[in-house]
Amino acid sequence: MQILPSALYDLIEAFGNLPGVGPRTAERYAYFVLRGDSQLPAKLSSALSSLHSQIDYCPKTFALIEKGQDVSPLYSDPSRDKKVIAVVAEPFDIVALEKTGEFKGTYHVLGGLISPIDGIGPEQLHIRELIQRVADDNVTEIILATNAGVEGESTALYIQQQLEQSEVEVTRLARGLPVGVDLEYADQITLSRALQGRQAL
Amino acid sequence: MQILPSALYDLIEAFGNLPGVGPRTAERYAYFVLRGDSQLPAKLSSALSSLHSQIDYCPKTFALIEKGQDVSPLYSDPSRDKKVIAVVAEPFDIVALEKTGEFKGTYHVLGGLISPIDGIGPEQLHIRELIQRVADDNVTEIILATNAGVEGESTALYIQQQLEQSEVEVTRLARGLPVGVDLEYADQITLSRALQGRQAL
Repeated sequence: MQILPSALYDLIEAFGNLPGVGPRTAERYAYFVLRGDSQLPAKLSSALSSLHSQIDYCPKTFALIEKGQDVSPLYSDPSRDKKVIAVVAEPFDIVALEKTGEFKGTYHVLGGLISPIDGIGPEQLHIRELIQRVADDNVTEIILATNAGVEGESTALYIQQQLEQSEVEVTRLARGLPVGVDLEYADQITLSRALQGRQAL
Repeated sequence: MQILPSALYDLIEAFGNLPGVGPRTAERYAYFVLRGDSQLPAKLSSALSSLHSQIDYCPKTFALIEKGQDVSPLYSDPSRDKKVIAVVAEPFDIVALEKTGEFKGTYHVLGGLISPIDGIGPEQLHIRELIQRVADDNVTEIILATNAGVEGESTALYIQQQLEQSEVEVTRLARGLPVGVDLEYADQITLSRALQGRQAL
């Protein structure tokens, strides 16, 4: 016998597709939506249905833009330095870098990282477009801001090799001790990177 | 400057309303929905919008039913014993009890627990309807299946007092050691309850 109404099962199943959401959490979300604020289902539902119709990818930087915009405002803004490009894997990485308030260049979203296991090669990423931008905008510096993992490192290496013939300076985000972390708690790889990258005072 | 499209901010904000979902998790969900399976936004959105229009409360047991059903199938089913009622706080508690496959009586959902701090008194719960059912269905046993916390215990006590004049037997789920938990790891309150409720072999 069906214990709960099928509309609720549908919702539990749909929530269960979200990353890291198991059956218990999905039940909790569904029941919360059912009992809670009566505006919430409509709000979530309309935000979801307008998602694909209102979001587009910037043809230049591959950042997320509003449908109808030509290019990302982070690229078109005259105060941003088009000669410096921070290369990131995913659009959300831009948010993290923007929060620092330190970076005044432009971005380039790869749309992933090279990962042979998942069948993602360089040609699936927006690397060709990056190299085109280097030529088009007379770019002087490429900052490789990919993650420190194996895929991030090999993607960075690949891009570096592709740009070897060009004049552009290729840099990478510094690896070292995170601010606030004690020396004794740092992992060995981070610590050896911090040693290798030691700076003169 | 807005870094992400506003449709994405709307979705992140909407996900952030779910219980236990902070800004980072909401971002993760939103980005997953944007990038992942293109069916998911539509599926979630339609499940959400049909939620309130397709779910109703059973007027007898206050369990969740399909819109259009008269009473819960867990009540109308002739194989269920209407003379035994398990009293639970929320509709999902029925799912947990049904999964045991041991209970063949009917349910009564209180719709919460007595909690003066949250302004929930006995009159906000479906206690009056429970007492009506006891009279209507010649109920012989009420099993109080509320949680073991302060609110669950005081709600159980209140219902017990309300039913003192009637003939109905009022029982409570056994408290004791959970199956699979070692004696040394059991908390003191559970252990003293297990001692008090010890059974002859």
